[in-house]
This record gives sequence, C-alpha cells and structure tokens, in this order.
Amino acid sequence: MPSEHTITRRVQFYETDAAGIVHFSWFFRYMEEAEHALWREAGLSIHPENSDIGWPRVAAACEFHRALKFEQEFDVTIRVTEITNRTMSYVCEMTQDGRKIATGTLKIACVSKLPDGSMKSVEIPEDIAMRFKPSDSRTSPLVPPASAKASAGKPASS
Amino acid sequence: MPSEHTITRRVQFYETDAAGIVHFSWFFRYMEEAEHALWREAGLSIHPENSDIGWPRVAAACEFHRALKFEQEFDVTIRVTEITNRTMSYVCEMTQDGRKIATGTLKIACVSKLPDGSMKSVEIPEDIAMRFKPSDSRTSPLVPPASAKASAGKPASS
Amino acid sequence: MPSEHTITRRVQFYETDAAGIVHFSWFFRYMEEAEHALWREAGLSIHPENSDIGWPRVAAACEFHRALKFEQEFDVTIRVTEITNRTMSYVCEMTQDGRKIATGTLKIACVSKLPDGSMKSVEIPEDIAMRFKPSDSRTSPLVPPASAKASAGKPASS
Amino acid sequence: MPSEHTITRRVQFYETDAAGIVHFSWFFRYMEEAEHALWREAGLSIHPENSDIGWPRVAAACEFHRALKFEQEFDVTIRVTEITNRTMSYVCEMTQDGRKIATGTLKIACVSKLPDGSMKSVEIPEDIAMRFKPSDSRTSPLVPPASAKASAGKPASS
Repeated sequence: MPSEHTITRRVQFYETDAAGIVHFSWFFRYMEEAEHALWREAGLSIHPENSDIGWPRVAAACEFHRALKFEQEFDVTIRVTEITNRTMSYVCEMTQDGRKIATGTLKIACVSKLPDGSMKSVEIPEDIAMRFKPSDSRTSPLVPPASAKASAGKPASS
Repeated sequence: MPSEHTITRRVQFYETDAAGIVHFSWFFRYMEEAEHALWREAGLSIHPENSDIGWPRVAAACEFHRALKFEQEFDVTIRVTEITNRTMSYVCEMTQDGRKIATGTLKIACVSKLPDGSMKSVEIPEDIAMRFKPSDSRTSPLVPPASAKASAGKPASS
Repeated sequence: MPSEHTITRRVQFYETDAAGIVHFSWFFRYMEEAEHALWREAGLSIHPENSDIGWPRVAAACEFHRALKFEQEFDVTIRVTEITNRTMSYVCEMTQDGRKIATGTLKIACVSKLPDGSMKSVEIPEDIAMRFKPSDSRTSPLVPPASAKASAGKPASS
Repeated sequence: MPSEHTITRRVQFYETDAAGIVHFSWFFRYMEEAEHALWREAGLSIHPENSDIGWPRVAAACEFHRALKFEQEFDVTIRVTEITNRTMSYVCEMTQDGRKIATGTLKIACVSKLPDGSMKSVEIPEDIAMRFKPSDSRTSPLVPPASAKASAGKPASS
C-alpha cells in the first residue's frame, strides 16, 4: 500500500528546446511517468485494456526552480496526498542531486465512459482506493534535504 | 499594445492519447502557442536568434473542464494579467463554441544567459514591457459567455 | 477527388530542440497533419469515432535538406501516389519559399480492430478508395520550382 | 569501441494515440534514445555544451511490423553500419520478447555551426570516428532470433 514512489530519469534530446533546456511541458509528463510507476508498484495499471473507467486529469500545476539540460539525470518523487470518493491528488518533486528542480501537483478524477464517448464522474472502485495510502505532505517532507542524499562536491546542474 | 490574443486550433492526431482525448500536457503547449502569437501581434519574437535574454517559465497551471478529441476545433485566448520588473503573468482560456474546455495560468521570468550556460534573473527591457498592456481579468471576462458566441443548437463536444 | 493537398505551418517553440532547430521527429508529424487535412478535403476523417477500421503506418521515411527554426513558416504538400487493395502510399514535400526543406514518404494500411485489441489487415472500403485519385509524382512535380512561387528578395531561412 | 547498443524501454501513456497504440513518430525518438546511449557507452555525448559541431539527421526511415501499447516493455538495438568522412549510418531494431516491432535506419551528418546560425558539413573529428566500429549488418543479425531470447509461452503483444 504505497503512498509515494520515485523514478530516476535522464533528459532525452527531444525533450529540450531551442533555449537549450527541457521544455516546461515535459515536467507534466515526468509527473505522469512517476504516477503510473506508483500505480504499477501498487499492483495496478491506470489504463488496463478494455477497462470501462478512466482517469482524466482535473488539474495540474508546476513551479519551475532550475533548468534541466540534455543527458542530465534527475529524480521524480510522487506522493498521494488525498483520496476522495471521486478524485485522487498528488504532490510531485523533481530533484537533481537533492536540489529542487520543480514542484508540482496533479488531481485526477475517476470517470466512466458513456456509449456516446463522453465521460461521467463516478466513485473510485474500492479495490483501487485501498491500494494507496494518502500521506500528508505537511508533516513529512517529500524529498530529504540535499545534505542527506547528494554526494559532496558534485557541481550544480546549471 | 495588445493585452490579449486568441488563436483557433484544430486537435492533431498525435496530440491524442489512448483514452481517445487530448493528452493534458498539450494544453500547456496550446497556451504557449497563444502566448507567442500574442508577442508576434505586439511586434516581438519571444526567442529572436542570438538574443542574450530568455523567458523561462516560472510557474504553469491548468484546470481541465472538458475533453477535446481528434479534429475538434477550439479557441485559445491568452491575456497578460501582470508585468512586474522581472516577470510576466498570463491567464488563458481554451473554449469550444464558447464552452470552457480548460483554464490556465503562466508566469514567465526574464533571464540573462551567463557564459557558463546558467541563467540569471534580470529586469524586463523597457522596449518589451511597453508593448503589452496588462489587463485585470477580474473586471473584464476573458471569454464572452457562450450565448454571445456559440450558435444555438450545436451539440456539446464529447 | 483530390490527389494532393498543401498546408501552411509555423514552427512552434516546443518543436525545436537544443540544437536550435526543429527536431527531426516533427517532420513525420507535419506529414501526418497534411495527410489528415487531405482526407478532410476529400470529405473524410481518418479516425471517425467508433469506426471499426483504422490506418496504422506501415512505413515512413524522410530526407532532411535544410533546417527549420522557431517561428519560420513553411508548406507541407502531400500527394497520394498509390492505392492498392489494402494500402495507400503518399509522397510529401516540405518547402519554405519554394526551397526544399524535407521530402518524405508514408505508407498506411487499412486494418480491422479485433475484439482482443489486435489488428488485422483488411481491404480498403470502396467508398474511401474512390475519394482519392493517385497521382504519379514522376510525371508531375509535387512542388512548383521556387522561381514560380517565392517572392524575389526574400532571404533564405538558415 | 562499441558498434551496437541496446536499451530497454517501457511505453509511456503520452506516447500512445487515440488508436490505442504508440504513435509512429515515437519510434524515431526511440531510435535516437538508443543512439545517444550508444554514444555515452563510447564515452561521448552527441551534444556537449558549447560544442561547435552538431549532428543533424540527413535521413530517417522506419518500417512498422507490430503495434506497441501502453506499459509494454521493448528493446531498441542500434548498430553503426557505416562511417564516412562526413556521415554516420545506423540500423535499428525494436523488438518485444524477440519479436520484431519495427526496423529503422538513421543517417546523420557532422556539421559546423556558422556565426549566422546556418550549418556547414564538416569532416567527422578523428577522436570521435575512432570510438565506433561500424559493423556490416548483412553478415551478423542485429537481433538474435526470438527462440534464443524470448521465454516460451509468453503471449504476443497485441
């Protein structure tokens, strides 16, 4: 019953833009990669074939603190912060050697697909909700301070 | 001296995902397209060749109200809401026949590129700031109500 | 009964990479945009909702002659070169002021979606095949020579 | 002095399209990921900061044999097939449990960046060319036959 998950990721060339850094739209995809890895760790797929429910995003936000460049490695840590009857919320931190790169949030809703192709909000199935344990990010830091993780002497990224 | 700009856009197939709708990361790119079109309307490029300043994103957020599907047409309206010494903020609405699809915000910072590749916050050049007229979105609606624009009887988007 | 179609397109910032030019993967998306516009011109959608057939790509190729940069405008011309019982082939040219940027080909197959999610090659429905008129690109040039189109004195793109 | 390299990759949700499979443009990005990993294995970066040379693509092609779906894992094997004075060529195979998914080729050119932003073909530096050992793919198969690798009894991918 995980509440958080961390993936390590390397910047691909096609994720950079003409400013020489990762385009901001990619940070939302990094968050989603970590979210789906969290679901797999919980024994689930967020999009199994032929499922009649789906999980569209209701809201997404990100603050960008430092730039990432081609081939740099970084971590993406996502944590479930709240599960209501019909929505799940996450907070996400992207770090490089323990230094904050970006911080984001995602809120998703459980929907049922109607025959006409539209979507209708439904309650989260119990066997999915029970797989996650929401964790209040105010009481425990999402990412340990840099001093606890980064090796000394490694140069900053940008 | 524009404060807002609207582009009309059609959903491309590569913007959809296996849920059959536009992937949420694309809405941030739609916002950026409208932003850059606003700059062009103001007689500027946000990324002229060999410029020594740049405009990284400091924060981005979006709320998703309805899904968009392949080949649907929609409007993206962006408005400058604030210009400080070093940052610009926008609000953005995506609509389809006057119905809200998504609402977002973007905050960008003016930076100077240092020789070592890092970026340093700098003041926005006066000849750029003067090209935009921030507009308080609380006093004037960003997008006119649907009744003022959409033709009656048109079916909802999904 | 069109055999070819041209769209005009502007390079978006998120299409560029750290080399300062459009990432090569985008040219395949430009081709697809033109393909789908050609289908619309023929009165068709290549992906109508709830259709039981689909059009996966069997092969794609592109040669890159010049780079495209942020905000540059260019044309994408696609032409149907062959329709067999089960496949369609296109040739595509991307030009800027009449100068070749890239030349590509696409081959797509008509498939039926099986209940288990797999795809099976099927014959192209007659009411689709009859909407296109394949044109041999060897006997008529896809794009008119630059002198016939580009306005004199316009500087080259890169 | 490597001539080939294999990466293992999982399909991300944002790589799928409304047909429920990986969009064909992604296969070119998969090839590039493997290419850059091959360069790293050779002790090089294909895009070091402040380098005055670059490696634009001259040609890219891919044949698609099977579809990939969300969360499926697959391998991408790239091999250097030829190095001339100014170009490098690769062949690439994407497989899933030893079954061919797609086969592609890439040809890149070494260029120097001119002060006006344009690019000029130059000779490949000797200290780069010497790091790779081209291998004729006609005499040794790029990917071992499925029987040599895939575990028996695993169901096909789609």
